[in-house]
Amino acid sequence: MTATPPQLTAVAELVDRRVHAFLAAEHKRWEAVDPRMAELVEILTAAFGRGGKRLRAGFCYWSWVGAMGQDDPGFDPQHQSELLQPVIDLCAAIELLHVFALIHDDVMDDSDQRRGFPAVHVEQASRTGPSGWRGEPRRFGESVAVLAGNLGHVYADRLVSQSPEAVRLLWNDMKVELNIGQYFDVRSSVAGELDAQTARQVAWFKSALYTIRRPLQLGLAASGRASTSDSAIADAFSEPLGRAFQLRDDLLGLFGDPDRLGKPTGDDIRASKSTEILAFARQKATPAQQQTLDTAMTSPVRSGDIETVVEVIRATGAVSYVEQEIESLVRSAEIVLDEMPLSVGACEALLVLARFVATRDV
Amino acid sequence: MTATPPQLTAVAELVDRRVHAFLAAEHKRWEAVDPRMAELVEILTAAFGRGGKRLRAGFCYWSWVGAMGQDDPGFDPQHQSELLQPVIDLCAAIELLHVFALIHDDVMDDSDQRRGFPAVHVEQASRTGPSGWRGEPRRFGESVAVLAGNLGHVYADRLVSQSPEAVRLLWNDMKVELNIGQYFDVRSSVAGELDAQTARQVAWFKSALYTIRRPLQLGLAASGRASTSDSAIADAFSEPLGRAFQLRDDLLGLFGDPDRLGKPTGDDIRASKSTEILAFARQKATPAQQQTLDTAMTSPVRSGDIETVVEVIRATGAVSYVEQEIESLVRSAEIVLDEMPLSVGACEALLVLARFVATRDV
Repeated sequence: MTATPPQLTAVAELVDRRVHAFLAAEHKRWEAVDPRMAELVEILTAAFGRGGKRLRAGFCYWSWVGAMGQDDPGFDPQHQSELLQPVIDLCAAIELLHVFALIHDDVMDDSDQRRGFPAVHVEQASRTGPSGWRGEPRRFGESVAVLAGNLGHVYADRLVSQSPEAVRLLWNDMKVELNIGQYFDVRSSVAGELDAQTARQVAWFKSALYTIRRPLQLGLAASGRASTSDSAIADAFSEPLGRAFQLRDDLLGLFGDPDRLGKPTGDDIRASKSTEILAFARQKATPAQQQTLDTAMTSPVRSGDIETVVEVIRATGAVSYVEQEIESLVRSAEIVLDEMPLSVGACEALLVLARFVATRDV
Repeated sequence: MTATPPQLTAVAELVDRRVHAFLAAEHKRWEAVDPRMAELVEILTAAFGRGGKRLRAGFCYWSWVGAMGQDDPGFDPQHQSELLQPVIDLCAAIELLHVFALIHDDVMDDSDQRRGFPAVHVEQASRTGPSGWRGEPRRFGESVAVLAGNLGHVYADRLVSQSPEAVRLLWNDMKVELNIGQYFDVRSSVAGELDAQTARQVAWFKSALYTIRRPLQLGLAASGRASTSDSAIADAFSEPLGRAFQLRDDLLGLFGDPDRLGKPTGDDIRASKSTEILAFARQKATPAQQQTLDTAMTSPVRSGDIETVVEVIRATGAVSYVEQEIESLVRSAEIVLDEMPLSVGACEALLVLARFVATRDV
């Protein structure tokens, strides 16, 4: 079991406290208008509260610390609350936006579970039905999930609305990419585009840009002290690390521990999702193996068949190839990090985060 | 046929030009990355291009003109482009946000048609199926519609991202209310809450706040010249006019011309939506009439039954009551408008808009 590094748990604590305080205030405000309206805030709060690594907040926070020239790796956030408030708000916004994305993605991917709990649309659907409210459970569940996601999106915006313009423009770019990347993902799997290039492009949007590069850039922009060359180095760091993140995600999606992940394995296969590991497996597969993979990706798969597909992927040698690739990508990212003009403490934290991204088991 | 007033068509032209230029630039940018990604921009552009009265932009624009002290009713926007750019961006943002809301609402309400065309989710669903892509048509159609809506939301944010903070905070408030109001609407119809108070509260959020008050306040805030008392008067104007707007909407939804409206009548009944006219009809109904209404609102309605329900509503006297109510509400709004310290030309335009809101047949 890979332990979550303290550099991440410390940020997660600050972010969680901020988001919960913000949502509690909103809940109170809406409950005074009509308790039925406050329900949507409750649904969002519950979805946020189901945890998450808060990885994107971690990248944003430590790039900000580094650009601010904070040199002490023991830099204690508790004692600098005024200085910290804007970056904590920004980190909180990033994680609230991520909850928006997850809630909507689960509807689009028809995923039943998230972090060991029923997905929002599944839970909400159960409020209707024979013993509950009228209406089609699926439509009601999905409508409420879309609205809870939208509310997360809007509240995330609220948390950056007092940031400097440079931050707000980056923030908007990130939101555009997030939605266009998700469209590309949904569309490619329905269109059956399983080639490696499409898989890489999806990974670029969903991981390199959204998970690493934009959070780093936001931290730099929030510091107000970063130069164009800092931003270029952040890009050079994000590209390999983003790919490593996505490859680890693909591996966990196939071979991870469902209990630790809080969702079943094989979801990408079930959803005919193009992933780099699958594209690689198809290249290396014998004709018989390729047949198994292509059948799985073009027609509905029964649960029992998932295991067969997973074993075929392993047998092609794709797993060890991907493990090597991850290691080499993280090394590239580490080398780039040496060039970043950030404080020693921040660089150390980013190195730890990079390793965690590549080796995590959750 | 009620003609759309020139004070509205002039604003609509400016807004449409701005939105189309903005979306065309985004389309070009994404097409260069991958033409498949640009598809989402195309889908949004088509949805926006299907028209609309651009009423919310009209209220925003004329309150801004009024607060800026522009006194000439012939005030020609063409010749003041630099001065106008920020308010046109704001009006464009309001109308793009409205397209987001409509696309999402159509999914939630399962509405097949919008402005005489198939709704976005219906049109997108047809890309899958026997002769097209794989996957469940409904899931794909609704996923793309949600994403196209989200993109509209994000682009609308982009258009206000350089506005003053006061405008951005109001903008965020409006977005919170929009989503909570929609949740309240969806939830109340599923829960079968058909009382007049719930109907009024839904109308307050969806019409008074979102359609009139927030656009007016945004225009005032964008001028940077409005006082707190101006804002209070704007509120006093919005409340009756918002109710009048919603009551007209309810009437059109039951008795309007489907060809002119671009969607079938009776949608509220089909979706068991609580409306003020229905609540009033239930109060005035004979026991037999009440039985018909309650059955229609608690169980699936066949198309043929809609006509019966509509006739029952008319027979209760609800229609003439609502017509009188609309007239009296518009008069109240007109009286308040006299007190607003806006230029004569702007006041005239707002009076014309108020009359249009109350008497429109689209």
